[in-house]
Amino acid sequence: MPQFPLPEIPGKKLGWAIVGLGRLAVSQILPGLVEAKRSRLAAFVSGSPDKAKRLAQVYGLPEKGIYRYQDMERLASDPAVDVVYVVLPNSMHAEYTIRALKAGKHVLCEKPMANTPRECEEMIAAAKTANRKLSIGYRLHYEPYNQALVKIARDTAEMGPTRLILAEAGFSIGDPTQWRLRRAMAGGGSLMDIGIYALQAARYLAGTEPTEVNAQVSSTPNDPRFTEVEENVTFQLRFPGALVANCTSSYGVGVNRFRVCKPNAAAELDPALSYSGLRMRVFRNGGIEERQHPAIDQFQTEMDHFSGCIQDGTDTATPGEEGLRDLRIMMAIYESARSGKPVALPS
Amino acid sequence: MPQFPLPEIPGKKLGWAIVGLGRLAVSQILPGLVEAKRSRLAAFVSGSPDKAKRLAQVYGLPEKGIYRYQDMERLASDPAVDVVYVVLPNSMHAEYTIRALKAGKHVLCEKPMANTPRECEEMIAAAKTANRKLSIGYRLHYEPYNQALVKIARDTAEMGPTRLILAEAGFSIGDPTQWRLRRAMAGGGSLMDIGIYALQAARYLAGTEPTEVNAQVSSTPNDPRFTEVEENVTFQLRFPGALVANCTSSYGVGVNRFRVCKPNAAAELDPALSYSGLRMRVFRNGGIEERQHPAIDQFQTEMDHFSGCIQDGTDTATPGEEGLRDLRIMMAIYESARSGKPVALPS
Repeated sequence: MPQFPLPEIPGKKLGWAIVGLGRLAVSQILPGLVEAKRSRLAAFVSGSPDKAKRLAQVYGLPEKGIYRYQDMERLASDPAVDVVYVVLPNSMHAEYTIRALKAGKHVLCEKPMANTPRECEEMIAAAKTANRKLSIGYRLHYEPYNQALVKIARDTAEMGPTRLILAEAGFSIGDPTQWRLRRAMAGGGSLMDIGIYALQAARYLAGTEPTEVNAQVSSTPNDPRFTEVEENVTFQLRFPGALVANCTSSYGVGVNRFRVCKPNAAAELDPALSYSGLRMRVFRNGGIEERQHPAIDQFQTEMDHFSGCIQDGTDTATPGEEGLRDLRIMMAIYESARSGKPVALPS
Repeated sequence: MPQFPLPEIPGKKLGWAIVGLGRLAVSQILPGLVEAKRSRLAAFVSGSPDKAKRLAQVYGLPEKGIYRYQDMERLASDPAVDVVYVVLPNSMHAEYTIRALKAGKHVLCEKPMANTPRECEEMIAAAKTANRKLSIGYRLHYEPYNQALVKIARDTAEMGPTRLILAEAGFSIGDPTQWRLRRAMAGGGSLMDIGIYALQAARYLAGTEPTEVNAQVSSTPNDPRFTEVEENVTFQLRFPGALVANCTSSYGVGVNRFRVCKPNAAAELDPALSYSGLRMRVFRNGGIEERQHPAIDQFQTEMDHFSGCIQDGTDTATPGEEGLRDLRIMMAIYESARSGKPVALPS
């Protein structure tokens, strides 16, 4: 049985274990932790001992903070670790999240939460049993440009109601041998990895849940990258009140835009989901206004948000239930594309 | 039987009769004619004699150049008129085009060509019988920004193949009593009037014909503008080789963008279909390049192109067959939206 921790020492930084030292961890998460206010690096869990050692030296992590995957249960007796950040291939999210929860740690799990809704449900149940918090790595919820676009989208007083949302997320994926292109590890193609940002945006901009989805899948024939998973998904979400989102997901081309359309105004982020360099333009009265918002480290902000939730006993803005909801919608998207029919979404 | 005209005097401007003096004619077409090189105003056909007289004074048209709709057959004996430009509500396109052709005149007909493919076929047959040319008012075919985007889209050498097209065309429509919102006169809603630009763009950017369409229709409930026709249509076109176009049509919000997406580059017009002020941006190597193209009078250019075709005996770039093709695809779009299923397009 998990023990209930003593109250945190005020001002203490929570200790984070990073599970999986791939590119995202190395290029974004570790640098983000250095700048963090309420979070600090406390452990690595990695299958690459040499890489872990090198990174431990760079980031000043004592060697006893390096764990192998098979040792992860030992985290239970490491008081330096409060939170585990799961940065593994999608197919490993459920297993490592549940193991970390069972070790008594809070968990931030990268998106997509898992490969199936069933796994998501098991992860949520494990968090409940362990009485630990579970959050999903939806970094854009904590990002000022996206937050400002949400405000514009949901505010009807200034520019009128949002009638249409356009959301596009895609990039040209490289190495055909990477795990993201293996169905067993990734659960799907561009939708699971990058199109999920367009789905997320449609949902947080609408501020309500979609009631129906239509979707179409396509892949360039004979492209070695797309033998197991799809290249493109176009999908359309119906929301209450005839609000519609037309979304595009791609592993073939770069698209990176969220647009909120109102009867006589519009606001757009492009790029919308990059780690930095986001831009907002507001279109109104025949003019274009560029709006600046704070440039932040998105991973630092996301981790500090979660540390704050744990320390302050508040709810994360992106709990496991949010990840589960996306998985259910993504399964409906694939079903619609397969059947060629609209799929109703349960409320 | 129509007579075959004598060869044109070199350098002569062809005489144009404008049928219908609504806003498009008054604000765009008549000013365009003033600047035209191979076209000149020769007649009005109008149901508003006072308006026609006022405009005739402004543009120096002799009063005998003013016809009523019921007099249109008299054009046959007016040697000043070579071409008739049909600028009427959609439901009147077929009738007035056929009457003009029977009067021995060449016809430029505004888009959409008609309300049904059947009418388009009758118009094409009438042009053949009359041995006169029939062109559709697809002004963007003659517009330099769109022509430059076509070149980028179809050129694979410089930036690679086009893998995805995004095309959006929409505006917030005003007066709920206007003919565009009456099904009998307009044939449909936003798709017929403005979404047709997105359909056109997808087709001329792809440079091939779509093989399948999916579509979804939505309208804001209780909006007095959308009691007979649809507000929004999202539609997806599949082209050979897995090229996909995701398109949006709206009478509720302003959208005005064509984007060509390649694996490592993109090019975009926004605005893409306005009468002026078009902008092109090319995205490549992490940078954005703004490209300038000549700013032209689109209606002058379109009319001079058609005058040139008539004088030089060449084919118009936008014949009746092009209008018919769009009508067939738009019917398939409506069918897909109605049935909730993909609709295959005959090749």
